Amino acid sequence: MLKARVHITLKPGVLDPQGKAVQHSLSALGFDGVEQVRQGKYIEIDLADGDRTLAQERLDAMCRQLLANTVIENYAIDILE
Amino acid sequence: MLKARVHITLKPGVLDPQGKAVQHSLSALGFDGVEQVRQGKYIEIDLADGDRTLAQERLDAMCRQLLANTVIENYAIDILE
Repeated sequence: MLKARVHITLKPGVLDPQGKAVQHSLSALGFDGVEQVRQGKYIEIDLADGDRTLAQERLDAMCRQLLANTVIENYAIDILE
Repeated sequence: MLKARVHITLKPGVLDPQGKAVQHSLSALGFDGVEQVRQGKYIEIDLADGDRTLAQERLDAMCRQLLANTVIENYAIDILE
């Protein structure tokens, strides 16, 4: 079995209203000096097959077809053990 | 300036309907062998101050007070420079 971690983040320059809302909330709670907050997604996927190269290709396809909106988002795949 | 990365994940045993939905969608798209999907949040925070120890404490407080629901979620903080 393979475990994969996928990070999906907004591309630089794309507005992040969710991150801005978190930043304002932190400021309202008294946390000063928070210059920027960007919020993304973190997905852990367990795959049955053990071939890393094949898994990388399939995870790449999953990101392009479902997990990420590649117009505005970047994705990064880490395959563990 | 310090850059921090925060991962917020559901505690083991807590049901993840969002992850289940992603798993079913992947299966419907023809991706076999996806055994489990768990979805979490990934937050990048830029802090003005440069003291790592202080930053770690403040980020910990941010997670407990706003970013994570510690009843059902774990959080992990990585501070980059």
